[in-house]
Amino acid sequence: MAAKLDTSPPRGMRDILPDEVELRDATAAAILDVYRRYGFRRVETPALEDIRLLTRSEGGENEKLIFKVLKRGEKLAHAEMVRIDDLVDLGLRFDLTVPLARYYAENHAKLPQPLKSLQIGPVWRAERPQKGRYRQFTQCDIDILGVESAHAEVELILATLDALLTVGLTGLRVRLNDRRVLGALARHCGFAGERVGQVFVTLDKLDKIGVAGVRDELRGDGHPEAAVARMIDVLERLEREGPALEHVRALLGPDPDGVHGALHTIVRAVTAEARGRYTIEVDLSLVRGMGYYTGPIFEVAHSGYTSSIAGGGRYDRMIGKLLGREVPACGFSIGFERLIEILKERRGPRDGGERRIAVLVDGQDDIATLVALARELREQGQIVSLEPKRKNLGRQLEELATHGYGSYAVLRAPGALDVRPLARRTGKEEARS
Amino acid sequence: MAAKLDTSPPRGMRDILPDEVELRDATAAAILDVYRRYGFRRVETPALEDIRLLTRSEGGENEKLIFKVLKRGEKLAHAEMVRIDDLVDLGLRFDLTVPLARYYAENHAKLPQPLKSLQIGPVWRAERPQKGRYRQFTQCDIDILGVESAHAEVELILATLDALLTVGLTGLRVRLNDRRVLGALARHCGFAGERVGQVFVTLDKLDKIGVAGVRDELRGDGHPEAAVARMIDVLERLEREGPALEHVRALLGPDPDGVHGALHTIVRAVTAEARGRYTIEVDLSLVRGMGYYTGPIFEVAHSGYTSSIAGGGRYDRMIGKLLGREVPACGFSIGFERLIEILKERRGPRDGGERRIAVLVDGQDDIATLVALARELREQGQIVSLEPKRKNLGRQLEELATHGYGSYAVLRAPGALDVRPLARRTGKEEARS
Repeated sequence: MAAKLDTSPPRGMRDILPDEVELRDATAAAILDVYRRYGFRRVETPALEDIRLLTRSEGGENEKLIFKVLKRGEKLAHAEMVRIDDLVDLGLRFDLTVPLARYYAENHAKLPQPLKSLQIGPVWRAERPQKGRYRQFTQCDIDILGVESAHAEVELILATLDALLTVGLTGLRVRLNDRRVLGALARHCGFAGERVGQVFVTLDKLDKIGVAGVRDELRGDGHPEAAVARMIDVLERLEREGPALEHVRALLGPDPDGVHGALHTIVRAVTAEARGRYTIEVDLSLVRGMGYYTGPIFEVAHSGYTSSIAGGGRYDRMIGKLLGREVPACGFSIGFERLIEILKERRGPRDGGERRIAVLVDGQDDIATLVALARELREQGQIVSLEPKRKNLGRQLEELATHGYGSYAVLRAPGALDVRPLARRTGKEEARS
Repeated sequence: MAAKLDTSPPRGMRDILPDEVELRDATAAAILDVYRRYGFRRVETPALEDIRLLTRSEGGENEKLIFKVLKRGEKLAHAEMVRIDDLVDLGLRFDLTVPLARYYAENHAKLPQPLKSLQIGPVWRAERPQKGRYRQFTQCDIDILGVESAHAEVELILATLDALLTVGLTGLRVRLNDRRVLGALARHCGFAGERVGQVFVTLDKLDKIGVAGVRDELRGDGHPEAAVARMIDVLERLEREGPALEHVRALLGPDPDGVHGALHTIVRAVTAEARGRYTIEVDLSLVRGMGYYTGPIFEVAHSGYTSSIAGGGRYDRMIGKLLGREVPACGFSIGFERLIEILKERRGPRDGGERRIAVLVDGQDDIATLVALARELREQGQIVSLEPKRKNLGRQLEELATHGYGSYAVLRAPGALDVRPLARRTGKEEARS
């Protein structure tokens, strides 16, 4: 027999054990059930996309993190090796938004209009691996394509809050902003147009570094002192006076695009449904990284955490680039891996174990008889597994209890099972190992 | 705005529309539910594996069809460009069996013993695209790792038959053979050891080309006339005398490995559960392609079709190559894409449409009011979607009916919905487009 090979999964990726898969499946099912009740329908695209689509999108930093796939057969043999990229024709998707835009552009004639899409699936990014961050991870997105009105944002936000409440999160807080408000803020302060992106990167850190930190960083980056002072003035006023919707109106001035009205509609409709379960506030420091956002942007945080569990926004110009005519669009994405980490920490004793029965098979037993008896138990709603009976029965019963079995059974002549309960264990022991 | 880009999915891959996604999800859920009642637990591995694992496995032809992933960053810069393969470190999995063997070798200490694994997920093969064959497709596998006894095969076969019955297939026929019987057959006939693989490739075609076709092909390949004559003699006797289990005993002779006993146990236990819903027969012409099988092999066909809808077998030596000690293993895989094609053909009018309501949003409507009314309908178990009201209402209502809505609603003062039924449509129109 050959020597043991390295059997670890690829760097930054991971194997998922049955207990966690069950938590993930149950969580996904609960979220999808909520989304379906809001009329979202699941769509599926391939994991691979044309490399040109992926590198032309406005995915920001993510484009640098693409897993690229080599051409195959003839095409590879004939590739001109001027650059390594000439060898590549496909890449693994780094998010679900770029593939959705392509899917809509390709299939819109067969799709409901508007399309309320629901996607859940893996994406891949070759990031430096670190705790809680993986190179393959699951995203769970809802998007509404073809609706200009802010009722789309309202549905996205309410459906996502409903889903997060359903899986047990509490203290939910929605932060809301608008890319056009950020633009107005930059103009109001007098920052140079081409340096506005850098200003927003700094502003994005407000809740980490505070107003003073923002001032120091803007100064350090050499922005005009007057612009920095104006920005700090706005931020201090917000800190003092709280919710910013009225300030937004002042910043925007005449507002031909109805930005203030849209934000007002969103805040009002979401607040009306809250019944103390969540809050929504305009937050001028919310930026979000993606280059493709054009209107309202939003995030959800929960309990004491400042980092968000879900984020999204409006991206009205992405589909036009693929389709040749503009289609309004907005979406909201739940950070599924982070959610699972939170739920794993909270998880109590394993549920449902009492319904699992191990039927222990002795070498002498008649398999046809055992199979028939196992079927009868299944017909009563039990989960039943045939397991070879081991010599060390005591150890085997301990292991069965650890792995979620509530009872075991052995064949008792003349063709009946003797079912006995197992001492109950929690899933914690296994989780710790 | 840029010109329209090519928005088709990569060659041989496809976008799945919501109707089909719903069929796929419902089918997968039904199958998984059956498997879970047999004690199988879902496990997950990454889509990517180390390229050395994939190319060292015994995946036969599939190894040539791997989508290979380029190294990244520093590693790519420092790669020695002697061969293109030096640029590659990962590949997309081409089946779920090789990753499962790695998963078990890596995680066995934390896993239940035996492991009854359930996997459903995409695999990738760069095959020449053709009708009904895709370069990304879903496999649905159950495997039992750590059980030597034939009760493992019995559970795999019964669970798979149960799953196929649950999703509505009829006329199920299990064909059963054993790699060791095939070996005994080759020895009995006197074929040269190193050419046995080629003999099996021909034998595999028996149900397509008949006994005469097998004879012609074996002769054409230059096998000894005496060996060909013996093989034809066995095949003719099987054709005349039907079920082959007794012939197997004769072929095997003393049978120190208990091959006959295992096949007998499988046939007897499966037959005892059949109640007219399926049959199982030993079939000496069943070969199956994979190099890694070591014992019983089996396939399921349904109704009039000769091609199989599920296949599997025992592969006792695969895990040993990774773990350093042998672990008995067997598995059964449902051809999920083929199953979906069959179910799509049969599909009747869309179900559940009558529970979907479109709430039409007029530009003047108060969103907070509509959202509250929609919520009330959802709380009554309805699927409710807010949709912008279009100018051409007649056309919009037709489209809503086509896409599965059973009714629509508009706001009626002072804050109530007027819900009206839509004429019922089948999903056929959409499916045809």
